[in-house]
Amino acid sequence: MSKKTNSAILIIGNEILSGRTQDTNTSTLSSWLNFIGVKVQEVRVIPDIEEAIVNSVNSLRKLYDYVFTTGGIGPTHDDITSQSIAKAFNLDYEIHKEGYKILEKHYKPGEFNEGRQRMIWMPKNAKLILNPTSGAPGFNVENVFCLPGVPSILKSMLGGLKNDIVGGEPILSCTINLRTVESEIASSLSKVQDNNKNIEIGSYPFFQAGKLGVSIVVRSEDQNGINICSSQILDFVKEKKIEIISRD
Amino acid sequence: MSKKTNSAILIIGNEILSGRTQDTNTSTLSSWLNFIGVKVQEVRVIPDIEEAIVNSVNSLRKLYDYVFTTGGIGPTHDDITSQSIAKAFNLDYEIHKEGYKILEKHYKPGEFNEGRQRMIWMPKNAKLILNPTSGAPGFNVENVFCLPGVPSILKSMLGGLKNDIVGGEPILSCTINLRTVESEIASSLSKVQDNNKNIEIGSYPFFQAGKLGVSIVVRSEDQNGINICSSQILDFVKEKKIEIISRD
Repeated sequence: MSKKTNSAILIIGNEILSGRTQDTNTSTLSSWLNFIGVKVQEVRVIPDIEEAIVNSVNSLRKLYDYVFTTGGIGPTHDDITSQSIAKAFNLDYEIHKEGYKILEKHYKPGEFNEGRQRMIWMPKNAKLILNPTSGAPGFNVENVFCLPGVPSILKSMLGGLKNDIVGGEPILSCTINLRTVESEIASSLSKVQDNNKNIEIGSYPFFQAGKLGVSIVVRSEDQNGINICSSQILDFVKEKKIEIISRD
Repeated sequence: MSKKTNSAILIIGNEILSGRTQDTNTSTLSSWLNFIGVKVQEVRVIPDIEEAIVNSVNSLRKLYDYVFTTGGIGPTHDDITSQSIAKAFNLDYEIHKEGYKILEKHYKPGEFNEGRQRMIWMPKNAKLILNPTSGAPGFNVENVFCLPGVPSILKSMLGGLKNDIVGGEPILSCTINLRTVESEIASSLSKVQDNNKNIEIGSYPFFQAGKLGVSIVVRSEDQNGINICSSQILDFVKEKKIEIISRD
C-alpha cells in the first residue's frame, strides 16, 4: 500500500455546536494520527442532520486520504451517522451480520433489544471497527472510519484501527517556552522560518501564574531539520537575553 | 435590521489540528451566541495556510449569517488571518489608522515596534472590534468577525460585539440526567421526538463515578415546547421506574 498521510476529522453532534459539550476527540485523534505519520488537515463539526453529514462526508473523502467521523452511532433517534454514510456512498443500509453476532454474544439473553439492534444497522459490506469497551462496533467504508462520540470508548478503539491506516513518518516536534512576548521575537522568528521553509514553526502566547510567555513549537518529520531550526531560535534567544522557561 | 440567526465558527490554527492545544473557543462562542439567539451550525478547524483560510471564509460567509474566526491575528509570521481575509474579500491590506492610534497609545514610547505594528495591518475599511485586555483589536468585514485565538482575550472582546450581532430569541434548554443506558429509552424517546418535531432532543451517554447514565437535552427557543417535551419524557421515565439523577 502506498503511504497516505493526510486526513480530516468530522465531529457529528449538536452538543458540541451548542457549547454544552467540550470536544476532546479532535485532540485524541490528532495526537494518535501524528504518531503514525498522518496529519490532520481539517476538522469540521456539524449537526445531527442527514444532509449535513452526507455533504460533508462526500466533500472530505475526496479531499483527504482518510476521514474519521465521531458521534452518532449509538441507539437513539439522534444517532444517524450510519444511515447517512450509507446514503453518502449510495449503499444499502442493513443489519451487519458479523456485528449482530458480536452484540448478541455481548448482551444477556433478552437484553439485545430493538434500541441495541439499531447499532448494528450499517452500510452494506462495511468493515467493523471492534469496540473492546462497550461492544457496539464502529465501521469503515473505503477511506471513511466511523467512531463513537464518547471519548473513553473512542480511545479504546484506536488500537484496532492501526492495521488499516498506513501513515508516513511520525510527525516530531520540539517546544521552547520563553519568558517574552510575541512582538519581541516576531521578526527574528520570521527569519528562522524563511531559512527553514519545510519546517512548521508556530508561536503561541500564554499567560501562566500571572506571567506572559510564548511557546514556540517546531514540527516536522525530519529530526535533523528540527534540530537546526531550534538551534537558530536559541541563538537569537541568547542574543536578546530572553529567559528560557522550559524545553521539551 | 432583520434577525440573523445562524452562524459558523472558523478556528484557524495548526496547534489545534496537531492535537497540541485543546480548543475551548468553540464552546465559549457557541454558549455566548446561543444566549443572543444565534445558532452555530458548523465549525471548521483549518491550518495557517492562506489558501485554506480564503476558501473556507468565502464558502462559509455565503452559507451563514455570521462567521466568527479565531486565531492568526497576532504579530508573528504564522499570523496570516488579516491578509487572508483581505484576499477573500478582494480588499487592499493596509495599516488601519484608528487601530494604529489605539496601539500607539497603548504602548510606551519606543515599544510600538515592527512586530506590534503588524497587528494593525487589516483589510481596507475593516471595522475594529475593541480589545480591553491587550490592546490589539480584532476586526469585522461584512458578516465576518475576526477574533484572537487566546481564550481569555477572546472572552474579553465579546461584550464589544453585541451591537453588531442581531440574533433571534435566546435558545433555551433543559437537561434531564437519568440512571439508565440509551438503549433502554431509545424507542420511547424517539416517540417523544416524533410528537415534538420542532424541538431538538439530544441523548448523551456518560460515565460518572463508575456508573453509567444518560443526559437528555431538550433545546428550543420556545419554553412552552420544552416544558411539554420534558413532561412527556418524565412520563416514560416514571413508567419505566428509571432513577432521575438531576434536572436543570
